[in-house]
Amino acid sequence: MTIALIIPDRKLEDLQQRLRAALPGVAIEIWPQLSDPAAVTFAVLWKQPAGILAQLPNLKALQSYGAGIDSIVTDPDLPALPLARVVDPALTESMLRYLAGIESYYRLRLDQFNRQQQQALWKPKSPRTLQTLCVLGLGELGAATARYFQAQGYQVTGWSRTVKDIPGIRCFAGADGLAPALQQADLVICLLPLTPATTQLLDQQVLALMKPGVILINVARGAIIDDQALLAALESGQVQAACLDVFRQEPLPATDPYWHHPAVTITPHISAVTRVESVVAQIAENYRRAEQGLPLLNQVDLQQGY
Amino acid sequence: MTIALIIPDRKLEDLQQRLRAALPGVAIEIWPQLSDPAAVTFAVLWKQPAGILAQLPNLKALQSYGAGIDSIVTDPDLPALPLARVVDPALTESMLRYLAGIESYYRLRLDQFNRQQQQALWKPKSPRTLQTLCVLGLGELGAATARYFQAQGYQVTGWSRTVKDIPGIRCFAGADGLAPALQQADLVICLLPLTPATTQLLDQQVLALMKPGVILINVARGAIIDDQALLAALESGQVQAACLDVFRQEPLPATDPYWHHPAVTITPHISAVTRVESVVAQIAENYRRAEQGLPLLNQVDLQQGY
Ligand SMILES: NC(=O)c1ccc[n+]([C@@H]2O[C@H](COP(=O)([O-])OP(=O)(O)OC[C@H]3O[C@@H](n4cnc5c(N)ncnc54)[C@H](OP(=O)(O)O)[C@@H]3O)[C@@H](O)[C@H]2O)c1
Ligand SMILES: NC(=O)c1ccc[n+]([C@@H]2O[C@H](COP(=O)([O-])OP(=O)(O)OC[C@H]3O[C@@H](n4cnc5c(N)ncnc54)[C@H](OP(=O)(O)O)[C@@H]3O)[C@@H](O)[C@H]2O)c1
Repeated sequence: MTIALIIPDRKLEDLQQRLRAALPGVAIEIWPQLSDPAAVTFAVLWKQPAGILAQLPNLKALQSYGAGIDSIVTDPDLPALPLARVVDPALTESMLRYLAGIESYYRLRLDQFNRQQQQALWKPKSPRTLQTLCVLGLGELGAATARYFQAQGYQVTGWSRTVKDIPGIRCFAGADGLAPALQQADLVICLLPLTPATTQLLDQQVLALMKPGVILINVARGAIIDDQALLAALESGQVQAACLDVFRQEPLPATDPYWHHPAVTITPHISAVTRVESVVAQIAENYRRAEQGLPLLNQVDLQQGY
Repeated sequence: MTIALIIPDRKLEDLQQRLRAALPGVAIEIWPQLSDPAAVTFAVLWKQPAGILAQLPNLKALQSYGAGIDSIVTDPDLPALPLARVVDPALTESMLRYLAGIESYYRLRLDQFNRQQQQALWKPKSPRTLQTLCVLGLGELGAATARYFQAQGYQVTGWSRTVKDIPGIRCFAGADGLAPALQQADLVICLLPLTPATTQLLDQQVLALMKPGVILINVARGAIIDDQALLAALESGQVQAACLDVFRQEPLPATDPYWHHPAVTITPHISAVTRVESVVAQIAENYRRAEQGLPLLNQVDLQQGY
C-alpha cells in the first residue's frame, strides 16, 4: 500500500505532504526513492521514464497528474490498468483566464504594437474586429471555452468526435464537421487531446479550410499541429497570427523558427497548470477506489486515447 | 450660423456629413476652408493651431472633439467662451476593454514572455498575483474603471480632487490623500486630466510613494508623468513595468528611450478613441444650446482646467 509519485524534474514534497494528510497510514514515496517497488499499488504520473512502470509488479491503477494522458500512454511498458486524469475547476478557470487574456491581446493588437515598439514605429489602429470563434475539442476545457466566448458575444462553433448539444453553440463532429466548424472563425482555439487521431491534424489541408487571416491559439498539445504547414500558412497570411502555449518538444529548442517568427506569440506552457491543493482530494479518492477495485474518477478511455 | 471643424490632420468628411444630417440648414465647414469666418458661431476643436480662434469674431461656444480639453486650452488666443468636452459611453466602454486587456497582459506575464521570446528563453512562471489597484482620477473614466476592477475582485482605491463616495471603493482626495491611495496598489491606473495641477504630478517623490514593484498604466496624458523620474524608477525596480498609451509628444519621437525600455509597453494612443457616430448627437445639441445661450452639455470648468 504505497503510492509512488513518478514525475521527473518537479519538486513533489508539497504533493507528498498533502497526500499523507489526506491518506493517513498510506506510504507516499517519490520516485526514484522507492523503498519497496512491490509495495506500490498506485502511481501518480507525468512524463514517467519508459520502463519504470514495468518495475512495479503490484500496481492496481494509474493517475495522471495533468488533464492530458498523452505523455503517459506513449510508454511502451504501460500496463493494462485503469488510468485516470485530473479534472479540476481551478484548471478550467485558469485556462479561461488565459484565453480571455489572449483574446484581448489580439483584439487590442498588442501583438502588432509590441512588434512596432521594437522598431520605434507609431501606427495607431483601432481594435481588430473579432466576432466568430471555433473551439476544436468540446470536452471539459473546450466546452467551458465555447460557453465563455459565447457569453462574451462571440458566434461560436465547436468540433468534437461525438456530436454535442450545447445551447448557443453550433456543434459539429467528425471528419465532415471540421470544415463547417472552422470556415467562418476569426479565432480558432485548439483544445483537443493528443491521440493518434489528432496528431498532425492541423496540417496544410486543414489550415486551408480556415478563414483567410485566421488567428490560431494552441493550448492543447504541440504535435496536433504540423509545424511546417503552420509556418507556411503564417508566411502566406492564411494564418494571420498564432499564439502557441504548447510544442512538440518542450522546452522549445532555442533554434526553433517559432521563436523569432513575427506573427507568433509564445508562452511557455503556462495556460493551465495543475495546482497541488486542488487535485489532492481526487487523487486520494482514486487511490481508495483502486484499492477497492472501483471505477476511478475521471477514468480515461484507453481505446480512444483520452 | 456656421459650424467650423478645426481638427488638423484628420479626415472630417464623415463628421461633416453626420452633422449636416443632424442639423439641416446649418453650414458645416472644415478648416482651413472657411467661406466666411464671421459666420462661424460654433467650433469643434482638437489641437487647433494657435491664433485660429482669434480669426473667428462671432464664436458663441467651443466643443472639444475628445474627452480632454488640454490640447485646446493651451491656446494663448482661446476666447473666454463656454467649452464642452465629449462624454460618451462608447469611449468609456473602449477604455474599460483596453484596461481589462492590459490587466490580463500583466497578470499572464505576456510582457515578460514577449521579452523572453526575443531571446528564445523558455521560463515558465505562474501568473502575477495582482490584488490591489489604485485609480488616479475618479471622473467619467476613472470611476467606471474603479467600479469595473472592484467587480473583478480587486481591492480598489481611488483619488480625486474633491471627495467621492463610491460603494466598495476606498476614496481619497487632495494632496494628503495621495499616499494612502497609492501605497498598497499592485497596479496604478492614471486617468487624471492634464491641468497645471497634474502636470508632472507623477514625479520621483510620488513614484516613491507607490508600492515597490508597482505596475503603472498611463491612459490619461503623457505630461502627467515626469519621464526622467519614471525611467529612473523603472531602472531601480520601484516601478516594475509601465504601460504607456499617451506621451508628452505624440507620435512618440523615434529617439525616445521609452521605445526600447524592456519594462515599457507602448500603445500608440489607442485606448479610447472618439467614434464619430456616438458623438454627433451631443455636438449637435451643444450647437443648438449655444445658439440659444443655454449651458452646454458636458461643459468644462475653465477655472479648474477640466
Ligand atoms: N496547455 C495547458 O496548460 C493544458 C492544460 C490542460 C489541458 N491541456 C490539453 O487540453 C486537452 C483537452 O483537455 P480536456 O480536459 O478538455 O479533454 P477532454 O475532456 O478529454 O475533451 C477532449 C475533447 O476533444 C474531442 N476529441 C478527441 N478526439 C477527437 C477527434 N479525433 N476528433 C474530434 N474531436 C476529438 C473529444 O470529443 P468527444 O467529446 O466526442 O469525446 C472532447 O470533446 C488535454 O488533452 C490536454 O492535452 C493543456
Ligand atoms: N488615452 C485615451 O485614449 C484617452 C481617452 C479619453 C480620455 N483620456 C484622458 O482621460 C482623462 C480623464 O477623463 P474623464 O472623462 O474621466 O475626466 P473627468 O470626468 O473630467 O474626471 C477627471 C477626474 O480627475 C480628477 N482630478 C482633476 N484634477 C485633479 C487634481 N489636481 N488632483 C486630484 N484629482 C484631480 C477629478 O476630480 P473631481 O472628481 O474632484 O473633479 C475627476 O475625478 C481626460 O482628461 C483625458 O486626458 C485619454
